[in-house]
Amino acid sequence: MNDRHACPTGPVRVGIVGASGYSGEELVRLLMSHPSAELVAVTSRQYAGQTLAQVFPRFASHPRARALRFSEPDTERLAQQVQLVFLALPHGVAVEFAVPLLQRGVRVIDLSADFRLREAAVYAEFYGHQHAAPEWLGRAVYGLPERYRIALPSARLVAVPGCYPTSILIPLLPLLEAGLIRPEGMIANSLSGVSGAGRKAEVDYLFVECNESMRPYGVPKHRHLSEIEQELSLAAQTKVTLQFTPHLIPVNRGILTTLYLTPLAPVTDAASAAACHEAVGACYESAYGREAFVRLLTGKVLPDTKNVVGTNCLELGWRTDPRTGRLLVMSAIDNLVKGASGQAVQCCNLLCGFPETAGLS
Amino acid sequence: MNDRHACPTGPVRVGIVGASGYSGEELVRLLMSHPSAELVAVTSRQYAGQTLAQVFPRFASHPRARALRFSEPDTERLAQQVQLVFLALPHGVAVEFAVPLLQRGVRVIDLSADFRLREAAVYAEFYGHQHAAPEWLGRAVYGLPERYRIALPSARLVAVPGCYPTSILIPLLPLLEAGLIRPEGMIANSLSGVSGAGRKAEVDYLFVECNESMRPYGVPKHRHLSEIEQELSLAAQTKVTLQFTPHLIPVNRGILTTLYLTPLAPVTDAASAAACHEAVGACYESAYGREAFVRLLTGKVLPDTKNVVGTNCLELGWRTDPRTGRLLVMSAIDNLVKGASGQAVQCCNLLCGFPETAGLS
Amino acid sequence: MNDRHACPTGPVRVGIVGASGYSGEELVRLLMSHPSAELVAVTSRQYAGQTLAQVFPRFASHPRARALRFSEPDTERLAQQVQLVFLALPHGVAVEFAVPLLQRGVRVIDLSADFRLREAAVYAEFYGHQHAAPEWLGRAVYGLPERYRIALPSARLVAVPGCYPTSILIPLLPLLEAGLIRPEGMIANSLSGVSGAGRKAEVDYLFVECNESMRPYGVPKHRHLSEIEQELSLAAQTKVTLQFTPHLIPVNRGILTTLYLTPLAPVTDAASAAACHEAVGACYESAYGREAFVRLLTGKVLPDTKNVVGTNCLELGWRTDPRTGRLLVMSAIDNLVKGASGQAVQCCNLLCGFPETAGLS
Amino acid sequence: MNDRHACPTGPVRVGIVGASGYSGEELVRLLMSHPSAELVAVTSRQYAGQTLAQVFPRFASHPRARALRFSEPDTERLAQQVQLVFLALPHGVAVEFAVPLLQRGVRVIDLSADFRLREAAVYAEFYGHQHAAPEWLGRAVYGLPERYRIALPSARLVAVPGCYPTSILIPLLPLLEAGLIRPEGMIANSLSGVSGAGRKAEVDYLFVECNESMRPYGVPKHRHLSEIEQELSLAAQTKVTLQFTPHLIPVNRGILTTLYLTPLAPVTDAASAAACHEAVGACYESAYGREAFVRLLTGKVLPDTKNVVGTNCLELGWRTDPRTGRLLVMSAIDNLVKGASGQAVQCCNLLCGFPETAGLS
Repeated sequence: MNDRHACPTGPVRVGIVGASGYSGEELVRLLMSHPSAELVAVTSRQYAGQTLAQVFPRFASHPRARALRFSEPDTERLAQQVQLVFLALPHGVAVEFAVPLLQRGVRVIDLSADFRLREAAVYAEFYGHQHAAPEWLGRAVYGLPERYRIALPSARLVAVPGCYPTSILIPLLPLLEAGLIRPEGMIANSLSGVSGAGRKAEVDYLFVECNESMRPYGVPKHRHLSEIEQELSLAAQTKVTLQFTPHLIPVNRGILTTLYLTPLAPVTDAASAAACHEAVGACYESAYGREAFVRLLTGKVLPDTKNVVGTNCLELGWRTDPRTGRLLVMSAIDNLVKGASGQAVQCCNLLCGFPETAGLS
Repeated sequence: MNDRHACPTGPVRVGIVGASGYSGEELVRLLMSHPSAELVAVTSRQYAGQTLAQVFPRFASHPRARALRFSEPDTERLAQQVQLVFLALPHGVAVEFAVPLLQRGVRVIDLSADFRLREAAVYAEFYGHQHAAPEWLGRAVYGLPERYRIALPSARLVAVPGCYPTSILIPLLPLLEAGLIRPEGMIANSLSGVSGAGRKAEVDYLFVECNESMRPYGVPKHRHLSEIEQELSLAAQTKVTLQFTPHLIPVNRGILTTLYLTPLAPVTDAASAAACHEAVGACYESAYGREAFVRLLTGKVLPDTKNVVGTNCLELGWRTDPRTGRLLVMSAIDNLVKGASGQAVQCCNLLCGFPETAGLS
Repeated sequence: MNDRHACPTGPVRVGIVGASGYSGEELVRLLMSHPSAELVAVTSRQYAGQTLAQVFPRFASHPRARALRFSEPDTERLAQQVQLVFLALPHGVAVEFAVPLLQRGVRVIDLSADFRLREAAVYAEFYGHQHAAPEWLGRAVYGLPERYRIALPSARLVAVPGCYPTSILIPLLPLLEAGLIRPEGMIANSLSGVSGAGRKAEVDYLFVECNESMRPYGVPKHRHLSEIEQELSLAAQTKVTLQFTPHLIPVNRGILTTLYLTPLAPVTDAASAAACHEAVGACYESAYGREAFVRLLTGKVLPDTKNVVGTNCLELGWRTDPRTGRLLVMSAIDNLVKGASGQAVQCCNLLCGFPETAGLS
Repeated sequence: MNDRHACPTGPVRVGIVGASGYSGEELVRLLMSHPSAELVAVTSRQYAGQTLAQVFPRFASHPRARALRFSEPDTERLAQQVQLVFLALPHGVAVEFAVPLLQRGVRVIDLSADFRLREAAVYAEFYGHQHAAPEWLGRAVYGLPERYRIALPSARLVAVPGCYPTSILIPLLPLLEAGLIRPEGMIANSLSGVSGAGRKAEVDYLFVECNESMRPYGVPKHRHLSEIEQELSLAAQTKVTLQFTPHLIPVNRGILTTLYLTPLAPVTDAASAAACHEAVGACYESAYGREAFVRLLTGKVLPDTKNVVGTNCLELGWRTDPRTGRLLVMSAIDNLVKGASGQAVQCCNLLCGFPETAGLS
């Protein structure tokens, strides 16, 4: 009987498939310092045979980085080495590793988009090809701990949310669920650092092409909309369509999202604006007041990515506008931590019965 | 009879009051190379006695920069030296220089907010104090040449628009006037480089505080809303209220504005989206097809500030979204050129009867 | 009898005077996570009364940051609260706090230049005024643990080296001591990020003035030369004069130093170059092979500040040039960590009998 | 008889081969605004068929950019279209185009390293392969107008210096020629912006890999040494060997070089230091006092790349150090303008009998 799901007594042995990109590198950083997980395998076709220290000089002071070598990705061998695997692979590739690993009883935390959607048709619409293992779509847990904390501990397959979705869903889900905002007409304007594009040798992401540049892209139908709208619709109990515009900004890390929302209770003057502001604050306090990684900004300060970079925190601020009747919500995260690898480790902690903040503070 | 308004035969003698800030420096750059304007006076309390070359080493190769010295600002003396003055001063200070210069027959192009509003009450609401010369509010021409080209040649006092307003008004005015969009519910999400904050020694604008940071500010009632809404209301022939959110981004120059709009003719599917897209393109072509400084992006490219930095151009792109029914319009300018000093020179060209692009191409 | 020097049984209570600058902020970050030091006092005239979380939003998730408030600096009160104080104050101000604290039996780790020099005359020459407490100059230990590890545990007053000195001394000291290089004619060319200038509201350090700029400064007699030459002379057992040129570079953090040296054994061809390279490697291996915070780059990789930013590590690489006969040594550190606050914590660990890497890995 | 060398009556028709890189783009920018050169051909395998406006949106407002299309590079066709060609091609490729163009009577200004060296053996040593047309090596004029102004007007083939060489040679040549410094032991420490690496899709030059990074590279034998030492040796009339260390810095443009030199007349105290400083100043004044593109910084200001970016100027500053006896010289240029395309246009002006500053001010 495969009992790997049980809470382990010793450290959990984990591996990373595709550890040479930015998310993979961040996973390495977090897992090497994790008190209860032991990183025993990292794979990369490109770097097989080299140590972590050779590929990532910044980790060279860590004993494990000098000892651990990249290997060719081999699911059979991985299944013997580890109890849990993080997949930091491109969309469409992750599924090829996830299924054989799952079949061998290895728990999988996938950072790609391959298992985020529940419906194969939506996947095909947004990703342009049929899903390779649609039978697994319904069995993955969406790895947003603030939302799926109950389902995660027993999950075999976790689909870690995208970076933009994390910055949008955490602010929106409680407001929708509490019925504080109208589910129609919501707008998310997002800014992302360049690491969001991955470590890809493309002219568009060269220093000179990005530095001193600000530009929208992927307008109007970015792929991340599919998972965002899926989760928003579940929370709102109605089909939600979102306006979402990402922009590329010359910083290494960070996502700053500004949300334009319509309160259900009309805001028409200073009094109703204050009431709305307070109701939103109460809703967030109730939803996130005890969350380790959501920081509610209740004073005059607004979110700033520099305050969350390198951490698993999301900064959340809000304002009501009596002139327009709108509610503005702003969030900031590190796209590689709360937007990817940190959230994956947070999920791992829940799967393994570790304190949720283990390795993340 | 004061005949200074007449088209001059020789070069027009111009001066800059407050030439030590970023806008002032950019005016110096543009005017030193202007074919028909002669920069004969620059003032600065801080730098009085020094040459332009000493204060701005980057201009030191220009003979005029080595010859021309900053003087103390003195309206009487200026009135003897120049026919036209650019005021690159803080809000509330410009008015103190504008009025005596105007009274002495000098034409004034003011880059501050002091004369942009038509109503003293709106000024007081947004700027927090009474206007010092309300009688002049109605006599200034708003210096947006694409809009006020007919009124500018005879203007004595020009109020050059703010940087954000320029990036918002050029995209919106023709759409409102043509009735292509609803005047309610418009949203402007803007990103600005740090030079927009001026050359002020404040901790918030230190390199380390801005680099690797993205942050909203001035939410929800930025001062620029007053002039934006004034001009939008005139075009829409109804009172318009705008949602506007500026963000600070670590680039030296540039404003990128993303506008969220609702087409009057509903967009519900691919066909209506295409029709809207085409109608907007026709409207822009009609409004700006012959404009030297508005670049309509009709292909797949979206606006990018790096394509306009250092120029007086505004890049303009648009997309319709059949999923949400919205129209998205995006613009990019250099905040110091089309958003300030370049536009001021463009106005100067109109006032003096020069070709509108003189000194700007 | 004051027995505070003894190795404590519980956590050591520490305080920071002047915690609102960049070094102070970095000390806060490190000490809040330190396993054996307890940060119980932070002072700042400017922020007295506010919590750490209010002044540094990035720390707001840390319980201590929400609890601990800045107080007015008061040496008497501090002496009751803490056993050890970090001074993160400007040069000339630190001495005013150090002496009363020392007199009250508090151990002092000073990050300023006030106690780095052994001779009051040198201080006066380089800092332009008489030293306020010359009797303490000889009693401070220079806080470079790789050099003064034996003296530090019993030190009452530690003078933490400057950022440039750290990047220069660690590479040079063992080479001089081993007699591998000539002490004459050495050159240090250094590049620094802007945080090295401190959190000062000066126009020179505004984002727009630093971004897209590279510039030397402080040529040819920077103040840091005094402590560098003092330590080099001690190691070389002869008076050493160094050529040192700092440059300001648009990054937040980091110092990259390139040293131009002359090997004592002439390098004239490939063979002597290889022998020199090997001898230097052996010297460094002997000096630093067991150091936790010095990373010897023995392969093809050269130092890169991005590999040390956020860490207490110094990257060290070297090359011999058979064409010129020179030895080139390159080092990279984070100016705020190994160049200031991390090194201060490393010293604190030695003073308190903690593992030297406590709170730094 | 081929009379193309004669000074033309109308505008000179010019072309650019390889116009899609950063140097090519900068040539396009300069030549489109040139008063006497007419850009009639641009070639690029990758972009053949597209207009300049499509490939470089920033030029889209220029009528020529909308009209001129990239063509496949075809030397026969080019020879019919143009009188002069700029080659902005990789090393080793330029020679393949230069020779057939020269044979057809087209004058060639080559921005690559293919014709900078006089000796084929040195080329082979530094570039790792035999030169494809060694017979042309002796016939090219090195395109440093401040040095070869007399030879350039009649040149058929110009080898434009590299960016680092320009920043090093202009400061050093007059000092060597005047015998003010010793030709032995010179050191050049250079910092370069990322555009110096070209528009190449390589991971090393991605935004995230360069931003917040400072690193030396190419140590100790960079290819540019070959041309630098050739020209230094000619000026010194003895074989010169230089120590040269380039560093990569996160700016788009600019080279900052700091030179460490030994004055021939010993500097040992304040008086000899002042005398040396004055002699160097007189030497530079004599060499460059009438140069349009060399700016001598005689006051307290030191070179800063932000003061030359976008211009063809070189900023030059110097200091003597009585403590070390050395002379320090610092220079700043825009690597794409004075370090490449601007200098190429300056050469073109000399070849064609235009004012040397035409199109460059």
